Amino acid sequence: MINKILIANRGEIAARVIRTCKKMNILTVAIYSEADQKAPYVAMADESYLIGPPRVNESYLNAEKIISVAKEAKVDAIHPGYGFLSESDQFAAACEAEGLIFIGPSGEVIRQMGSKIAARKAMEEAGVPVVPGTDGAVASAEEAVKAALNIGYPIMLKASSGGGGIGMQVVHSDEDLTKAFESNSKRALTFFGDGSMFMEKKLDDARHIEIQLLADNDGNAVHLFERECSIQRRNQKVIEEAPSTFISDNTRKAMGEAAVNAAKALGYTSAGTIEFLVDKDEKFYFLEMNTRIQVEHPVTEEITGLDIVEAQIQVANGEKLKVEQDEISINGHAIEVRIYAEDPVTFFPSPGHITTFDIPVGESIRNETAVTSDYDVTPFYDPMIGKLIVKGANRDEAISSLNDALLQYKIEGIKTNLPMLLKVINTDAFKKGNTTTGFVQEHYLPLINTK
Amino acid sequence: MINKILIANRGEIAARVIRTCKKMNILTVAIYSEADQKAPYVAMADESYLIGPPRVNESYLNAEKIISVAKEAKVDAIHPGYGFLSESDQFAAACEAEGLIFIGPSGEVIRQMGSKIAARKAMEEAGVPVVPGTDGAVASAEEAVKAALNIGYPIMLKASSGGGGIGMQVVHSDEDLTKAFESNSKRALTFFGDGSMFMEKKLDDARHIEIQLLADNDGNAVHLFERECSIQRRNQKVIEEAPSTFISDNTRKAMGEAAVNAAKALGYTSAGTIEFLVDKDEKFYFLEMNTRIQVEHPVTEEITGLDIVEAQIQVANGEKLKVEQDEISINGHAIEVRIYAEDPVTFFPSPGHITTFDIPVGESIRNETAVTSDYDVTPFYDPMIGKLIVKGANRDEAISSLNDALLQYKIEGIKTNLPMLLKVINTDAFKKGNTTTGFVQEHYLPLINTK
Repeated sequence: MINKILIANRGEIAARVIRTCKKMNILTVAIYSEADQKAPYVAMADESYLIGPPRVNESYLNAEKIISVAKEAKVDAIHPGYGFLSESDQFAAACEAEGLIFIGPSGEVIRQMGSKIAARKAMEEAGVPVVPGTDGAVASAEEAVKAALNIGYPIMLKASSGGGGIGMQVVHSDEDLTKAFESNSKRALTFFGDGSMFMEKKLDDARHIEIQLLADNDGNAVHLFERECSIQRRNQKVIEEAPSTFISDNTRKAMGEAAVNAAKALGYTSAGTIEFLVDKDEKFYFLEMNTRIQVEHPVTEEITGLDIVEAQIQVANGEKLKVEQDEISINGHAIEVRIYAEDPVTFFPSPGHITTFDIPVGESIRNETAVTSDYDVTPFYDPMIGKLIVKGANRDEAISSLNDALLQYKIEGIKTNLPMLLKVINTDAFKKGNTTTGFVQEHYLPLINTK
Repeated sequence: MINKILIANRGEIAARVIRTCKKMNILTVAIYSEADQKAPYVAMADESYLIGPPRVNESYLNAEKIISVAKEAKVDAIHPGYGFLSESDQFAAACEAEGLIFIGPSGEVIRQMGSKIAARKAMEEAGVPVVPGTDGAVASAEEAVKAALNIGYPIMLKASSGGGGIGMQVVHSDEDLTKAFESNSKRALTFFGDGSMFMEKKLDDARHIEIQLLADNDGNAVHLFERECSIQRRNQKVIEEAPSTFISDNTRKAMGEAAVNAAKALGYTSAGTIEFLVDKDEKFYFLEMNTRIQVEHPVTEEITGLDIVEAQIQVANGEKLKVEQDEISINGHAIEVRIYAEDPVTFFPSPGHITTFDIPVGESIRNETAVTSDYDVTPFYDPMIGKLIVKGANRDEAISSLNDALLQYKIEGIKTNLPMLLKVINTDAFKKGNTTTGFVQEHYLPLINTK
């Protein structure tokens, strides 16, 4: 029985998990670095522990320290949130070894999905279409150029252990590829301790559409439909919505079934997301699987009425899924925007002291914030300071509410991406749902460059 | 066709109406007094007009001025919100005379329900139970004492045109009654221009439970179930919830049907609320009818998924109700608390400059606020600065979320009733749902007096 959980994370996701724990009458333990002493999530938890200096290696990535706090606080389970240790199979294994429940899938599945090459292979075996590309790692630039012959340019070069866009680059020629291979392999080795690279066909006008999954330990798996997350800057999502306006009901059904079949074939448990690229003919291809809760999970919660964190905890507690596929339906339309402390033109982080932090209110508004007024945004972590989720009966209504809500913000003391978000959602392309992965390049950057 | 609406109100309800108008692609016109130039709702509207000095008689109660602005701005309709001119049949009639749609029921129904004596009579005719009491106004203290013989003490003495608790007093003896009659009749004359008084049996351990109605011009009427609003201070609601934990499904059904029958008998249109007193045996008695949107309408919206303001506008536009009774059901539990700029012990208003105004966030939270940080709360209007609405799968979950949310507030510069709300929701009586109209006297005041 899970009665007490340590949240091995910070910011808005730590607050999010704590809220659901409280709802379930589960005690919570927060951890924080010296930079996060005043973070709102720390005060929300029943107990909180300082775990080290600001640098992530000494705090939020310090698995040993976190496990020792978990044992000291006598928790039953650890919720890893997203990022940090959430997709570390070693951390998951270390938790289990210490008798702590890791709230997520098994270490084995995490490891498999953590290698883009192994994941691709597993999906092919489960009958899920994958993007044309190399079947395994390519050893050298020469080998890469040879493989490119069969794939055809443009090609996306990727680090096998990559994440957050690191080690990733689009290449258009043999020359491009040769140069990119060396530098990205080196970066990947530095960041992930693994310099192996692979290649995939770069799809034009593709959309990033992902399927949310829930699976339990009794072999039950359901999908919670899709999220459209094509609008990205620096290979990181900025605006996500559900449902997708692009795919037909047939494609929606096919993608959901493919994802559920894959989850079953993998023996997947807990919440997870399979990301797909969908081309202009609605053909979909496996991109990667995230074996954790995602930043954008609230849009799915808003349209399905389900609490994904609650489901994670229930499954970790050995319970069966509380819903069956035919009980899950889409109600309305939800959009999430990520609010970053960053320059809206260069996308560079803009840490500093927030003097004023007034947020939007109203009947269709869900705020998930990591900060308050009179608060320091430090340079140590991802500059996301909050998320805004709006819901409407349909997409037009949601966009209208989103526009009004964005205008309500009053954030002073730091730069934010609010001007970018307002510009993006007011483009014709966004209003028409023409959200492809090249959106920011094609529709946003021209707007600010001509101004 | 309604394409443009003037909102004849201020604060959170003006913002609320503007949001739904935007959703419906209806243009909005805000009005504001000199005290409200910086109020958030003013900036939200498409146009805004200064209508006069802070004093309500010269601004928000200045019907002539408001109608002239409405004509200047070429609006099609006026939404009166709650309070101010919302229950003035003369204002409704003046709007119609000027070719402006008044978003509410007919002036005739407003007039009838505005007189507590006439309303009581109409309800009796419609077969709705009324509290034992005088059938009409009592002319003098002597006559009142005579009538008290049949009713029996304790008795609630009420001003016929009363509202906001003014002119209302509980009396326990002939002596009490004689004294109270003179002073309350005088106050009522001053406040409402009508000194007539009537009397009702004061029910012990009674609950204030109200039924939300929607009705159109084609004779269709539905109810949106009940709200439990028993927790009051100074005869004004502070905490409201839906559904009631007290009434059985049979009582719920009977109250809903009685309210719908009354609406049909009255020829009622638009949104309205019939307030009942419910005694410990679940017998219910008509208390009064509010012919407008209510402060606490969000809890009903949260459990039914319906937008009551949208329904008001649709009906005013001549459209039929979009829902039938059997399509409306209760989903989860919602609680609203009103946040006042007031002393939590004396309940006296506490105007001043708000320096910090950080509000709760999360997946179950709906904020409806009238202010921001760096904002002046003036002494001219009701001191309500916002409302917090939380939703849960059940009441326990909602209370738990409410507690967490209240702890998240950081309001500096003024006193608020947050400490009162936290104390109230943490009493055993509240947790058990023992919310009767004497709650604050019985459970809250003893807590602070012994401290």
